Amino acid sequence: MDELTARVRAFAEERDWQQFHTPKNLAMALAGEVGELLAEFQWLTPEQAATVMDDPEAGARVKAEIGDVTIYLTRLADVLGIDLSEAALTKLDEVATRYPTVEARGSAKSAR
Amino acid sequence: MDELTARVRAFAEERDWQQFHTPKNLAMALAGEVGELLAEFQWLTPEQAATVMDDPEAGARVKAEIGDVTIYLTRLADVLGIDLSEAALTKLDEVATRYPTVEARGSAKSAR
Amino acid sequence: MDELTARVRAFAEERDWQQFHTPKNLAMALAGEVGELLAEFQWLTPEQAATVMDDPEAGARVKAEIGDVTIYLTRLADVLGIDLSEAALTKLDEVATRYPTVEARGSAKSAR
Amino acid sequence: MDELTARVRAFAEERDWQQFHTPKNLAMALAGEVGELLAEFQWLTPEQAATVMDDPEAGARVKAEIGDVTIYLTRLADVLGIDLSEAALTKLDEVATRYPTVEARGSAKSAR
Repeated sequence: MDELTARVRAFAEERDWQQFHTPKNLAMALAGEVGELLAEFQWLTPEQAATVMDDPEAGARVKAEIGDVTIYLTRLADVLGIDLSEAALTKLDEVATRYPTVEARGSAKSAR
Repeated sequence: MDELTARVRAFAEERDWQQFHTPKNLAMALAGEVGELLAEFQWLTPEQAATVMDDPEAGARVKAEIGDVTIYLTRLADVLGIDLSEAALTKLDEVATRYPTVEARGSAKSAR
Repeated sequence: MDELTARVRAFAEERDWQQFHTPKNLAMALAGEVGELLAEFQWLTPEQAATVMDDPEAGARVKAEIGDVTIYLTRLADVLGIDLSEAALTKLDEVATRYPTVEARGSAKSAR
Repeated sequence: MDELTARVRAFAEERDWQQFHTPKNLAMALAGEVGELLAEFQWLTPEQAATVMDDPEAGARVKAEIGDVTIYLTRLADVLGIDLSEAALTKLDEVATRYPTVEARGSAKSAR
């Protein structure tokens, strides 16, 4: 198991929080944190958003929210018994087959 | 750089999709995929949700959505120049300081 | 135009905020507020969630988040020129045709 | 009760779906539909997003997703016993007090 999964699991167990960490609850918490991440960007112009990490305060808030999203995604995957990297790489391979590089170049319709 | 970040970056570059992968767009895409993940759980009872991975079809859909969420989180972090594990571990340390194990045990108020 | 749409529009114009209220920004803000709404429920058991409005503090927070979600949905619909009730009733009619009452009764698969 | 609330309630009762329409489930469904709404905008440029309703197909999809979001928000409010308009107007009044028009004009920090 990778270090982050182990640390997040230990963190929950030390506080006796497994009872709250059901798949539905964790999925809701993940959505809540993604909402907080979006809130950091919602009023920024595309230019401001592209350089947000250059601003010490705004950049720190974005990094913190990315951290929260990662924590809950990691915890949810652990509770479900899913390997995050393996799930992502498998999905990438499937999408790569459906959108070969030649046809997909520069097209918004398949920009996934 | 870890393998997943490199694979997702190459995937986008091969299809000339960097133009679409701005921070705001990627944050929106992340929220969209988390929405699809929640949709897999929304009508399940807590018991059905706890054993969803035992169902071949439902389990495969959950794994695919977890994969999509991970892909977009990885891509967003790459575009922002944020290390996912480091951001998560830093946040965990901060929360651990605010919620020491003794006071936090079993309490819903601090179940983060 | 209904009262809420007019009030939300006036609220934005009085503060010169139309510049920020683009469709993408408002959709992100809507997602952010839905995230805050989910956060009020994420650690509650189904029983606690069912009676949350009986708790003065928790109920007030839920009502406030419902208010925020409604404000942004109203503003987004106004900016796009969409009538919320008409859009909802039209969609209900379409779904009613796809899921006639006899077949759909009590089935999770079509519980939309 | 307004027409939409009554229609959505009848729709659920006719199909015996009240069992699935718990506050947590409906909040998750709402987040799922908002995710689908964001997906309609995520790859559009600000200019394309501003004129999306001029495109018959894209505009119809946006209207359908706005419809779905409204249906679930209406159902959730009904189950919780919250009046959507009253909750939104109350929240608007509170925010108006915190951000009086003079100080807030044109400022991103208070663009809520």
